[in-house]
Formats: sequence, structure tokens, C-alpha cells
Amino acid sequence: MTNTLQTAVVGVTGYAGAELARLLLHHPRLKGKTPVFAGRVDAKDIARGGQPLAEIHPQLVDSRGSGQLIQQPFSWRLLDDLGVEVLFLATPHEQSREWVPEALKRGLRVIDLSGAWRLTEAANRAVYAFEDIDSEVAEATQAEAVYGMPELHRKEIKSARLVANPGCYATSVILPLKPLVAAGLVDLERGIVADAKSGVSGAGKAATAKTHYMYAADNLSAYGVFTHRHTGELLEQIGLGASEIVFTPHLLPIPRGILSTIYVHFKEAQTRASVMRVYREFFADSPMVRLYEHALPQIQYSVKTGYADIGFQLDGDGRRAVIVSCLDNLLKGASSQAVQNMNVMQGWGEAEGLE
Amino acid sequence: MTNTLQTAVVGVTGYAGAELARLLLHHPRLKGKTPVFAGRVDAKDIARGGQPLAEIHPQLVDSRGSGQLIQQPFSWRLLDDLGVEVLFLATPHEQSREWVPEALKRGLRVIDLSGAWRLTEAANRAVYAFEDIDSEVAEATQAEAVYGMPELHRKEIKSARLVANPGCYATSVILPLKPLVAAGLVDLERGIVADAKSGVSGAGKAATAKTHYMYAADNLSAYGVFTHRHTGELLEQIGLGASEIVFTPHLLPIPRGILSTIYVHFKEAQTRASVMRVYREFFADSPMVRLYEHALPQIQYSVKTGYADIGFQLDGDGRRAVIVSCLDNLLKGASSQAVQNMNVMQGWGEAEGLE
Amino acid sequence: MTNTLQTAVVGVTGYAGAELARLLLHHPRLKGKTPVFAGRVDAKDIARGGQPLAEIHPQLVDSRGSGQLIQQPFSWRLLDDLGVEVLFLATPHEQSREWVPEALKRGLRVIDLSGAWRLTEAANRAVYAFEDIDSEVAEATQAEAVYGMPELHRKEIKSARLVANPGCYATSVILPLKPLVAAGLVDLERGIVADAKSGVSGAGKAATAKTHYMYAADNLSAYGVFTHRHTGELLEQIGLGASEIVFTPHLLPIPRGILSTIYVHFKEAQTRASVMRVYREFFADSPMVRLYEHALPQIQYSVKTGYADIGFQLDGDGRRAVIVSCLDNLLKGASSQAVQNMNVMQGWGEAEGLE
Amino acid sequence: MTNTLQTAVVGVTGYAGAELARLLLHHPRLKGKTPVFAGRVDAKDIARGGQPLAEIHPQLVDSRGSGQLIQQPFSWRLLDDLGVEVLFLATPHEQSREWVPEALKRGLRVIDLSGAWRLTEAANRAVYAFEDIDSEVAEATQAEAVYGMPELHRKEIKSARLVANPGCYATSVILPLKPLVAAGLVDLERGIVADAKSGVSGAGKAATAKTHYMYAADNLSAYGVFTHRHTGELLEQIGLGASEIVFTPHLLPIPRGILSTIYVHFKEAQTRASVMRVYREFFADSPMVRLYEHALPQIQYSVKTGYADIGFQLDGDGRRAVIVSCLDNLLKGASSQAVQNMNVMQGWGEAEGLE
Repeated sequence: MTNTLQTAVVGVTGYAGAELARLLLHHPRLKGKTPVFAGRVDAKDIARGGQPLAEIHPQLVDSRGSGQLIQQPFSWRLLDDLGVEVLFLATPHEQSREWVPEALKRGLRVIDLSGAWRLTEAANRAVYAFEDIDSEVAEATQAEAVYGMPELHRKEIKSARLVANPGCYATSVILPLKPLVAAGLVDLERGIVADAKSGVSGAGKAATAKTHYMYAADNLSAYGVFTHRHTGELLEQIGLGASEIVFTPHLLPIPRGILSTIYVHFKEAQTRASVMRVYREFFADSPMVRLYEHALPQIQYSVKTGYADIGFQLDGDGRRAVIVSCLDNLLKGASSQAVQNMNVMQGWGEAEGLE
Repeated sequence: MTNTLQTAVVGVTGYAGAELARLLLHHPRLKGKTPVFAGRVDAKDIARGGQPLAEIHPQLVDSRGSGQLIQQPFSWRLLDDLGVEVLFLATPHEQSREWVPEALKRGLRVIDLSGAWRLTEAANRAVYAFEDIDSEVAEATQAEAVYGMPELHRKEIKSARLVANPGCYATSVILPLKPLVAAGLVDLERGIVADAKSGVSGAGKAATAKTHYMYAADNLSAYGVFTHRHTGELLEQIGLGASEIVFTPHLLPIPRGILSTIYVHFKEAQTRASVMRVYREFFADSPMVRLYEHALPQIQYSVKTGYADIGFQLDGDGRRAVIVSCLDNLLKGASSQAVQNMNVMQGWGEAEGLE
Repeated sequence: MTNTLQTAVVGVTGYAGAELARLLLHHPRLKGKTPVFAGRVDAKDIARGGQPLAEIHPQLVDSRGSGQLIQQPFSWRLLDDLGVEVLFLATPHEQSREWVPEALKRGLRVIDLSGAWRLTEAANRAVYAFEDIDSEVAEATQAEAVYGMPELHRKEIKSARLVANPGCYATSVILPLKPLVAAGLVDLERGIVADAKSGVSGAGKAATAKTHYMYAADNLSAYGVFTHRHTGELLEQIGLGASEIVFTPHLLPIPRGILSTIYVHFKEAQTRASVMRVYREFFADSPMVRLYEHALPQIQYSVKTGYADIGFQLDGDGRRAVIVSCLDNLLKGASSQAVQNMNVMQGWGEAEGLE
Repeated sequence: MTNTLQTAVVGVTGYAGAELARLLLHHPRLKGKTPVFAGRVDAKDIARGGQPLAEIHPQLVDSRGSGQLIQQPFSWRLLDDLGVEVLFLATPHEQSREWVPEALKRGLRVIDLSGAWRLTEAANRAVYAFEDIDSEVAEATQAEAVYGMPELHRKEIKSARLVANPGCYATSVILPLKPLVAAGLVDLERGIVADAKSGVSGAGKAATAKTHYMYAADNLSAYGVFTHRHTGELLEQIGLGASEIVFTPHLLPIPRGILSTIYVHFKEAQTRASVMRVYREFFADSPMVRLYEHALPQIQYSVKTGYADIGFQLDGDGRRAVIVSCLDNLLKGASSQAVQNMNVMQGWGEAEGLE
């Protein structure tokens, strides 16, 4: 099949960017047109047109020349000239705030991996302290944004011009909770606890005290207690009040992967079968969610895959459940979910290029 | 000061045993009399009297000959001949069930690191499926047992003949919860969540599928959901009904250390000061508990130390708290707590040999 | 393109087996006929025909039913009935010794991942202490065996009935040395040093003292000094006498990946260009070898890929070189090399299904 | 015994600094006078006199108030006022270059953990590119410097005013080689290979691309090939020409520990006994070196101890040896060696406070 879709990735330098590059370079529907890579390019590389992928991500070098692909200096002109239609932004949220309105104006369809457009505009401002762009533009842009979780918003994503790719922790907690809360099973008054643990790649490529090997290795630490940015997404998407859930992220001494242990009380006693029924129904058309029949998910089963794994166990009374949710923070928590969104937008099989 | 106390360790081969050996060999009060090491000795070592510590734990070799200390084949006769007064058992619980009554009969004071005597006798049987020893003997023995957590039972430990050293996870969860529950602050009806994560040494030295490097590395897994053995200790010691707490252990990809994240609701709004006051009062005489004023504990701060670290954060309303509790599972979760118990039993400074 | 090749994997339970399954299930040339998985099946699974892949390797579950594929009890009858043509053996070498002659007799083409057929028959017996099968059969079988390193033996592999897949360490050391030694550059009298470091998956799935998490984690250990089994392959393939190379493996605290640091003296001064020329020429037709122009390879660049990465640095005089060679022990060190051999045997692109 | 020695540590913030603090705070000979901690102090801490140890290294908090010890702003006046006699510098080498001459002028005895004074002055300049201080001062200072490896220079250290604490890799390679080379056993013409692997703490506390968790985790990389700074120490101390040894460091994915695998050729065939004899003789008075009789050292046996572990294996002919040398890069590779030097300078037992 001939591919006519020209994609582009801005911000291929980071970890999520590397995964985006890998997925797009091997996507069966994109074989005809190599993705465009653009971003910030050092002065020393301008002379040769940009920086080769081989220098940014040596692991991507193959026998077909992928290593010689260049990350070119970003410009809107470049995207125009190359006929880019779908733009993936793997940039800091301040950058996305600036560029997304412009991209939409230029008729591009945008999949933004930052957190800039995931909430209502008022919530965006509150969470990210944005004071930057014109509030009318912001409101108009936010109005176009669809929260990029296909399992929840497949229809809207299909026709969206702007897809706000969800946060990694958020994906890990929303997917297992939404079906149960939407089905009215959960006793919200007693409160939900989401205890999440993520590998270090989620903290980004910047060298900081917290990404120092000695900070993370052989260690576990809780952070963002009652304050983490992803909480806004949890509340909006699942439909919860702030007092109905506590979400605590932890930094795990591994490169990638998230495991969230979620504790719920049920209004009435449930059985394994009754809960599985709710999940199966909700995820009937979702190829990228794997439901565990017996064992519980473990991080290693989903790392390097684009799946979100969900498993659970009930107490003897069937009144309480411990749900375990695992995914790869760089894949289902970022880049593979972005490609999954592209698949939906293009009307392709949702799992194409991801299995 | 002349030391007249002869100690012995059975089961120095395991990880907790290595720590016990290290602590006892360097304890300032035990300088006069080297601890006796006894255990199961291979046929090939019987000829030379036993197995040298240098072969079991090469890291313990020093310039003073510690490496040449021998783990001798266990016999009651050996303990008698050497005048052992305090016996540390770092053996499987089935062994402790058998040996503890005999040790008490022989006038030894016993600190047992297994789980065999931590609960009421009925509970012991239920949790560990013991069917072995005579029930009268078991009841009589259990009646002598004191739960070995000095912060809670200092007085009873002082005169105890049998100290049941607590489980590692249990220590990590009981210490931060007991003060708050005892002070009547916690809304038990809403339920407590204790999400615990432990390094692999807690799983023991036996080579099994679950202690295989490939099972634990770069992974996180939840296990013992609603079923872990330490739950009995939590309920008894904190004073909770089974429906008032959910405890979920996880296997962390690190050698040692436990971090427990504990979620409580308060009956009434609290402040940081009011909660700290309760902790400070409860732990006023406890040198081996460190309360964190500002930051939260992290596993790496307590690993290789005998401390239990406790920190917390309240939500804006002061109605909910996330408590973080860290300790080294082989030390405060086992061997240093055992030595701490010995210190109490002997009337020595509780932190001697531990700081 | 219609696929007519029926493959089978015996021993899919192990780590290399999981990778073989993954590669074959996604190989573009094998889409028509799902690989057959056969092996030792527990009694409890016989009733349902075998054990589902979902239970053996949960990470392989996908939306197309791969998880429901069954590892069936092995029998020659099964392979006959299903028309198996190419048989991958990921079994212990004792098993391969027994089964390979039988497979050849039945007209199967075999790719054996064990070490049983990698050397001359006399050497096999010496290294592996085989005393088992009839020596005439063994000789005849060995005579058919081709050492499965396409970069060295492409022609012979193409027509081979039995491919002896190389050892992981061996691959890592042979690939960077063969070209230089074959070109006569190396001063063998001064001796070559190959200091190799491998992740724990190379030690196999069996739970032993050496695969215990606590043995490997935060540790490095040298083993098999002057005695490792792979030495025989090094000597035969590179063409060295035992006194001309020292090879020392080490156990690295990571799940997968090998880095070998190789030290050579040159007979005459070399330049970067002269050495690169030798490598480029030797590997001109080898898509699965990546030569590093500037930086040195690192384990993380080749893990989860089927590439062998080679880089080097010369001293100021050009008389000595330090060569760094990296690959994934489960892929180029085992399973992807096996699939690469199948590609050669079938006359397909050598990198098909591997990039 | 009353302690009259006032020590001070500049640079307690780093990893080696934390270990120095720990060792000095618990040194039996230093009980009377708490070490002074001085360094660079943020403006926000000046008001309260400096920064408490509890904030810099939470793991050092104990029940005796160690956590409240303050790292005060450095000044020579402070050291004078407090009567400091022995000054430990755990500062960057540029700082040591500046401060050491001044410290000597003020009559302090200095133990410098940086690399600034380890070589001849000419070599220092070449290796570290120092252009800073007056060359006469530098020459005079260097003339006072003694290379701080007690096993080699005990006598000179005893009377030294300036002890240049050796590099970690250097210690790991010099200790096992010096005895053999000094005894004339080694065939230097054939060249020695030292392949060294170190945990990440050796790279320092600064957050850089190379100390980023994602750079080190699940990875191994060689660096400083033919160029590492420690080479100068190896050549000078062992007495080798540059062409007689190749030294390659690697970054290991662990927090601490070094293992060096060293390859030598002997002029004449040796036996295990003959080699052990050389080592035993050389290290007869060295309590901090442990010689392995049978097994080989592993990193985990020496981590968190102040020992250098040496073991070896000969080939069948006794003509080649593989020597394995392990130590903790922060202890015998830095801080415990510094304390060991202090012990020698003070005429105390060399192992005091280290076992």
C-alpha cells in the first residue's frame, strides 16, 4: 500500500523522541515517506544540515541508512516544504504552548506529548503556571484539544486536529479506574488510593540532582505527594473530586516502566467475574490493553511493548480490590500512545506498527 | 568493661545471619567473648570442625581473624559447653518451632528471627500451618514470647525469655501507624492502605524462580495481595480489624531496603505540628527511630543503618496523610532489631553497637 | 508473498527461547505458518494440549492471539504431522546431542543453539565431556555441522543441514578479531587479551546460587578463568593457539548484553584508516555488524537489537589497539543469530525480520 | 584514651566526603574532638552558621546529634580558631592546587583526596593542565608530597606534611602489580593489561550526561582509552614505561566498587605458591589488604569495607596470570585510605576505625 502521509517529529533527542523515531521508521503505513526530524540543532551541526540520528541515538543505526537521517533545524518553512501533515511534538510544554496554535493555523494535525493541552484551559494555567500566550488563542486551541487516550475517546480523536497525549502516570491510573467508576461500582466516599512507581526515564534527559545515577540507584523515593501535575488529568478523565483519590508517584531504580497499585472499595460485594465483565466490555475494542486472567501484571511484561496491562485481586468479601496496572512510560505512557492516536486519526488499525 | 555475655547465632549462613555476625563481632559490650556460630554443616567441613566464616561471608574477613571463626555443627551440647546465655535463631520457622521450647528448657534466653512465635498461638498455627509440636508446649512457649519491637514493648522485652523478632514489612508498617492509631487520630472506618516495597534479600537465600536475577531485575511485582503473612502482626500490634487495613508487598529490584507508603484518613483535621507531636511523644525514648522534619525518607538513607525512618505529608485540609516509612529489611527489619532487643534485655543502651 | 516454511522451536521456555518465539512470530517471511512450539510439558498441562505462551512469556501476549499459542509436548511425530522443515533447538546440550542426529535422519534442517556441535567432534567431547552417543553417529553428525556465524561462513551455512549456533561470548570476541588476524595484522606472539562482561540472562533460567539476585546485583565477578567453554570456539574460528589469547568472562549486574574489551598488539604501526579498511572489507556484506566511526560501542546501544557493534581506539604509536565489541547475548549472541542463519539457509535477505 | 587531635574536612558534600565524615565521626581515637566540616555554603544557610549534616547526608543522622553538625563556610581563620591539625581536602583538584600550599604554610598536615599532588610536578601539569600557581611554590609543595598508599610508602607517610591520596583506579591496579613487578617476576616486554570497571560514584556528584541514570543503568561503557589520568600514577608507582601497560576504565551500572582484571606474563613459570609467597611477603604488615587463597574477589565482598582484595589464577603452564583486584572506590579508593594515612601519620594502628 502506498503511503501518502508525511509525518514529522520535533524533539527526537529525548527518550520519548527516540521511541517515536523507532516506531515511525518501522510503521508499515509510513514506508513511503521517511518521517522528518526537526529540533534544536547546535551551531556545529548547522553546516552539515543538522545532526545525524546515529549520533543522537546510536541504537537506531541499521543497514538501511536510518542512522544517516538528520535532525534538521526546526522551521515552519521546513514543514511546509516537505508537506508535513501530522506533527508530533515531543517538546517541553512551554514550547508546545507556543507552537501548537501556529501549527493548527497552518493546517497541521498535531499530536502533542507535553502536558500543555491536556486539561481545561483554566486547569492548564493553574497546573503549569502558563502566563504566556494570548488567552483567546489559548482557549480556542484548548477547545480543539482531545485527550489522547483512544480507549476513552476514540471517536473524538478520529476527527481531532489537536491530540493532547496523556501523561504516563495518568494513563497508568485512568485506564484501570475509568471502567469501574463509570460503571458505578466504586465507593468514592471512602476514597481511592493510587500508589504509582516509575522508572527514571520518566524524569527526562536533563542532568539534574534527581536524575543522577546515585540518586536513583538502589533507592526508592516518593515525591509530588498531593501535588503531582498528573492529578488534574486523573480527576478530569475519571470524573473524581480531589478528595476522592490520593495519587503518590515514586521514583523506581529502573530505566523504564510504571506499575501502579490501586486500591478501591466497592459499594457492593463483587466477584472476579463481575469485575472482569466490566473490564472486558469497556476494552472490547482496545487491542492495546491486556487484561490478566489469573496472575498480576509485572513491569517487565509490558516494558518495550505498547500495552497497558491490568490485573486485580479481590479480598474475601469482594468489598475491596487491589488493582495492578503496568505499562512502559515511554511507550503506552508516551510514544506508542501517540502513534496509536495517529492510527485512529488516520482510520488505520489501532495496533498497527505497535505489535 | 569486661563482657561476660556469651552469645550464639544459629543460621549465620543467610543474609540476616551475616548481619548478625557483623553486629555481634563489633558490639562494644561483647568484646570479651566471641559469639558462637552454629548451624548445618556439610559433611566435607565436619573434618575441620565446621566452615570458616571466610568461606560463608568473605566480606567479613578482617585483620583480626574474624574470617577464621568457624560455623560449627549445631548441638545443644556445644551451647552448654560454651556457656551460651543468649541464643539468636536465624533459622526457618519450622526449625524455630522445634528448637525454641528446648532452648527455654535449657535456660537460654532466645531471640528468634523467624515468624514462629510472633502471634498468639492460634494465629501462629493459622498463618504458618504448624501441626508439629505438642500444643501444650506450644501454648506455654507462646505465653513466654514477647513481640520484639522495643519502641512498643520495651518493658516486656527487658524481662522476656523469648523475644519474637518482628517481620521486616511488619516493622516498617507498625512503627508509623501505632502512635497515630493509639492516639485515636485515625478514621479506621475508611480504611488504611499500606503499600510496601522491599529489596530482594527479604526473599531469602534459597535459589528459586522468584529470587532469580531475571525475575527481579528491572521489574516490580506485587505479591501476597490480601494474603501476606505479616498481616497478622500488623493487626495484632496496631490493634486493627482485618477490614481496617490493606497491606500489599512488592518486590523491588534492589538488594536491600523497604519503603512503605501508608495512607490514612484522620477523624479530624490535623496539622503538621499536631502529628509530629504524637510521633515525638511516642518515640521520645527510641534512639533507633528517626523522624523527618521536612523531607521524606528514602530507602538509601536507612540502608546499612539500624534506623527506622518516618516522614509524612498532609493534604491541604489536614484530613489525609501520606506517611513514608523506610528501613533496611536485614537490619531494623531483622538483625539490628534483634541486637537492639538484646541491648534492652541486658539493660544496655538501646543503640549500643548499632550506631 | 506466501510462506511455505514450517518452523518449530524446542525449548521456548528459556530466555533465548522467548526471543526466538518473538522473532519468528513477527518474521515477514513466516506469516503464513505459525511456528510450532514444543518442549517438556508438565503433567498438569497435558490435558489441555500443552502450556499457553501467555503463561510462559506474558510479555508475548498480543491482540492477535499469540498468547494462546501452545507449547505442546515434544514428539517427532508432532513435527512430522505438522510438516516442520526447519527445527530450532534451544535445549541443553545433552539434549541436542541426542536429538540432532535423529532430526537429520528425518530430513529436518536444524539450527542448534546449544554448544554440542560447535567444535570438532574430538573437541566437543573434551569440552562437554560427552560420552553418550555412538561415536560414529557423532562424527557423522559433526561432519555436517557448520559454525553458524554468517559473517564468517555464509556460503557453508547456505547449504548446511546442521547449523551450530555460536556461543554468545564467542560471537562477541570472534567478530572483531577474525578480520584483523586473517589480515595478518596481529602480533600473536605477544598475546591477545579478551576481557568480556555479560548480563545474567547468559547464565540461564535455572535458579542457582549464581543466578540468585543477591549474587549478581551490585556486583561484578570474574569466572571461568582460563577454563571457559567458549575458548574452544575462539581458537578454532579465529585460528589461534591456546597460548595466543586469554579470555576472561565476568558476570555483569544487568539482565542482558555483552561488552568485550579486546587488546591486541600490531606487528606494524596501523592507522585508524588502515584498521577501518580491514573491517569494512570483511563486513562489506554483513548487515548485522555495525562499525563505529568515532565513539565506542556501549552495551545499551545493541541490547534488544540483533547487531554486533564494533569500535576501537589505537594508541599514539598505532602499535596497540583496544577494541570494544557489544551485542545482546540473547539476540546476536543466540536467537537473532539463529534467525539470521535461517535467512541465509533460505536465501532470504540476511537482516529480514531482524531490523 | 583522650584524643587531642582536631581534624577538619573540606568538601563533605560529595560522596567521598560523606564517607570521610562517617569514618571520622566514629574513629575511636577522635572521640574527644568532633571533626570540623567546612566548605562552600549557600547564601541561604549562612544565616544559621552553615548547613546541617542532616540535610547534606540524611543517612548520617544518629541519636547523638551528628545530624546537627554544621558544614560551616570555609575560612583559614576558622581552622586556626578551632586548632585544626590535620586537614582532609575532598575538593576538586583546582581547589587543592590553591589551598594546599597555604595549608602547609600554616603548619597544617594535609591529606588531599584530589589528584593535584600525586605525580611529579611536571607530570601534574601535563595531566591536569595546571597553569595556575607559581611554579616555585608548586615545586616546593610537590617536594613535600608523599603518595598516600601505606602499603608502599608507610615510612614516608609517617613523617609527611602532605599526603597525596591516590586515585581509586590507581589503587586497584598498583596494589596487585607492584609486588610482582618489584620482585622481577613480570615479563614487561609483553605488556600488562589492566581492564578496570568502576561504579558510578567514582564519576562524582555533579549532574552530567555521564552521571545521568539513563546513561549508566543496564549499560557498560569503556572510556579514557589510552588517556585516563590515573595512568600517570600507575607508571610512576609501579615503575613502568607507557608501552608496558594498557589501562582501560569502564563505567559499571552500580553505585560503588571497582574490580580490575589484570593480565600479566611471567618471565619464568610460576606456581600458585610462589606467587602467593611474593604477595604475603609484600603485604605482611598491611592489615587493609586481603589475599584470597582460593576463590577470586568479587566487588560485593569489599564494598562498604576499607579493604583491597587480591586474588589470582595461573594458566596451566604457570606462564600467565589473571589477577582480580577489588575495592570500594569511595573507601580504599578514597576516604578509608585517607583515614588509613592519618593513622600512619599519627602512629596509630593502621586499621583503627576501619574495621
